[in-house]
Amino acid sequence: MAPGIVSPQRSFEQDSASSGPARLDASKLRVTKTLHPSKLPPAEDLTFGSHHTDHILQVRWTSEHGWQTPQIAPYQHLALDPAAAVLHYGFECFEGMKAYRDAWGSVRLFRPEVNLDRLNRSAARIALPTFDADELLKLIARFVKLEERFIYGKPGYSLYIRPVIIATNSNLGVAAPTSALLYCIACPVGPYFSAGFKAITLEAASSVVATRAWPGGAGNHKIGGNYAPCIAPEKAAKARGFQQLLWLFGDDDRITEAGTMNLFIVLRTEQEGCFELITPPLDGMILPGVTRDCVLSLARERLAPSGWTISEREICMSEVVHAAGVGKLVEVFGTGTAAVVSPIRAIKYRDTLVQCGLSRHQSAGAITALFKEWIEARQYAVEEHPWSVPVSEIS
Amino acid sequence: MAPGIVSPQRSFEQDSASSGPARLDASKLRVTKTLHPSKLPPAEDLTFGSHHTDHILQVRWTSEHGWQTPQIAPYQHLALDPAAAVLHYGFECFEGMKAYRDAWGSVRLFRPEVNLDRLNRSAARIALPTFDADELLKLIARFVKLEERFIYGKPGYSLYIRPVIIATNSNLGVAAPTSALLYCIACPVGPYFSAGFKAITLEAASSVVATRAWPGGAGNHKIGGNYAPCIAPEKAAKARGFQQLLWLFGDDDRITEAGTMNLFIVLRTEQEGCFELITPPLDGMILPGVTRDCVLSLARERLAPSGWTISEREICMSEVVHAAGVGKLVEVFGTGTAAVVSPIRAIKYRDTLVQCGLSRHQSAGAITALFKEWIEARQYAVEEHPWSVPVSEIS
Repeated sequence: MAPGIVSPQRSFEQDSASSGPARLDASKLRVTKTLHPSKLPPAEDLTFGSHHTDHILQVRWTSEHGWQTPQIAPYQHLALDPAAAVLHYGFECFEGMKAYRDAWGSVRLFRPEVNLDRLNRSAARIALPTFDADELLKLIARFVKLEERFIYGKPGYSLYIRPVIIATNSNLGVAAPTSALLYCIACPVGPYFSAGFKAITLEAASSVVATRAWPGGAGNHKIGGNYAPCIAPEKAAKARGFQQLLWLFGDDDRITEAGTMNLFIVLRTEQEGCFELITPPLDGMILPGVTRDCVLSLARERLAPSGWTISEREICMSEVVHAAGVGKLVEVFGTGTAAVVSPIRAIKYRDTLVQCGLSRHQSAGAITALFKEWIEARQYAVEEHPWSVPVSEIS
Repeated sequence: MAPGIVSPQRSFEQDSASSGPARLDASKLRVTKTLHPSKLPPAEDLTFGSHHTDHILQVRWTSEHGWQTPQIAPYQHLALDPAAAVLHYGFECFEGMKAYRDAWGSVRLFRPEVNLDRLNRSAARIALPTFDADELLKLIARFVKLEERFIYGKPGYSLYIRPVIIATNSNLGVAAPTSALLYCIACPVGPYFSAGFKAITLEAASSVVATRAWPGGAGNHKIGGNYAPCIAPEKAAKARGFQQLLWLFGDDDRITEAGTMNLFIVLRTEQEGCFELITPPLDGMILPGVTRDCVLSLARERLAPSGWTISEREICMSEVVHAAGVGKLVEVFGTGTAAVVSPIRAIKYRDTLVQCGLSRHQSAGAITALFKEWIEARQYAVEEHPWSVPVSEIS
């Protein structure tokens, strides 16, 4: 293009605020660093969510003007109108993702595009604004770089990153939000199982007693409304001595999720020496977990060649009970961002305590432990893999 | 009791903070009035939720210390930690209730104990703290008295009162809240149908497309998570020209709620001159509406003696379609605190537009209008009735 000729496209972009709602634009980021950096907590104190980093990333949105200037500012309280829609009608969605420090000291995100894609789908499901995921990824990378000192260079340590979108408009009518805040905070975290695996016992919740999700609902999204109603039933299960609930669905007691984890079951098949790894399908009633997807990918890559069947299929409690009875239930484990994998010792179902393949002194099955090792190898870049993205390469 | 002898009970009460979590205590209320009272908005501007009064009632709670000192303070923003559980996991419940000014100028609440009982049940369902409803009623009465000037002495005007409980603890783990804030704000509102009734057309949502509630879920509670997921399906219905969704459930397309209203259907029965008033039962999947209860009570009192059958029973779309086809569908209306009753003109179901008994120039059925008149007569104390409680009598 000849010098002096204005590009129509560039002109359009510059005018975007007046000619239509603005898109999320990471290049506009403004950073105000804290004048009072906090002291790093002792490594052994880093339980989940107990500490936060020094800053918060914030981007305001309005239906009229779109995404405003992104800001990183000192960690601070949010000032919300008491009529803000997020406080009344559950207009809130979030993600949980992690940054890791590899053996060479570099900071890496793990499959961040999967989390941001899911955040966009959660937002759309509850009429919150969506965003350009590449731009948010750049902002999060900048945020993580700024908070890098909170990522301890020790095995099992990471930075838990929590992007959130909330509706901030203060008209009490139940309607699509007209203003919102996207923000991101982070917490340094230590290993989930600091003293080795701890296998837990689940109580299977019949769908009449407590149902987490249903067809046509929103149980496959990371939105606030999916969490609060689970606590009272879970407390009741804890009072009966079980660590978490196994959420069933339907008259046939189909398995969906356990607590806030996806569930995997290893069965020995009819054919000698063959196994099936089973997880419920993404039928709209379970969260499409990132760790779930990692397990399936790794299983297809590394177990299927050895004759394993890798199944995303419906599985009912009756099948699990039967398999346990005939010695074919090999292992059960949950998956999630916090613990990676979480071994299950037993499932209480009706009057039976179904043993899930662990001997009394065993705290995790071999396959469960293998997946933890395989996934962490990629998270910490012990195995170089495209899932792990150095933040220095995001810009 | 002899002077000088300390009452053990009084001593216990004084020590309650150290000997156990404190109960909600209205007598401890502290009031800080605004120094800048707002100008009253013009009566014609009072659309729902567009203005708020000058103050906010707040009571903090912690699991350790219980309910703290209630405060009425100038209306102000809430300062929340960005990790506050209400912003992530949907720990939020609320009520909608109204204060009215009667013909003699006195301010009255309408069945407030029903709302506060429901708020307690909502709170318990999502592990938020419950409270002594009598004490909260006293606090709300004090709050309403302070904001009395916002209740216009005109027919159809009232003060919409919004009590809310939110979780404020800032640990990111999904668990029962350890701190919370109960607050109450209020909005002056004008008549919902300022220029006469407006009948609306519903689109029936097959339960596969969008389902509001499920057995074992929390659809019968006024919690945030029940609202946000309804907006996207409702927007889609609006884009197709329908004002609200009619939420169906099950393979037999059972009627549950419409938008955020309970639904009533009037059918002509086989017997000449006899009618049945039908509303879906409180089976855990619909909100137990206060106006719904008023309609049922009034119908049992005033219509049943004339041979009407008053039914809380399951009703499927097939029955409504059939009744419309044979000329037995007399009226359909929704009920809620905002509009009292809301006439329904038609229901789009599959390929049919089911006409709900109104002629083209008619905006509400006779029974619908009658219920509005009967209920408002009690709300404004035109008919003196125990449902209406003068705030001056609450202390």
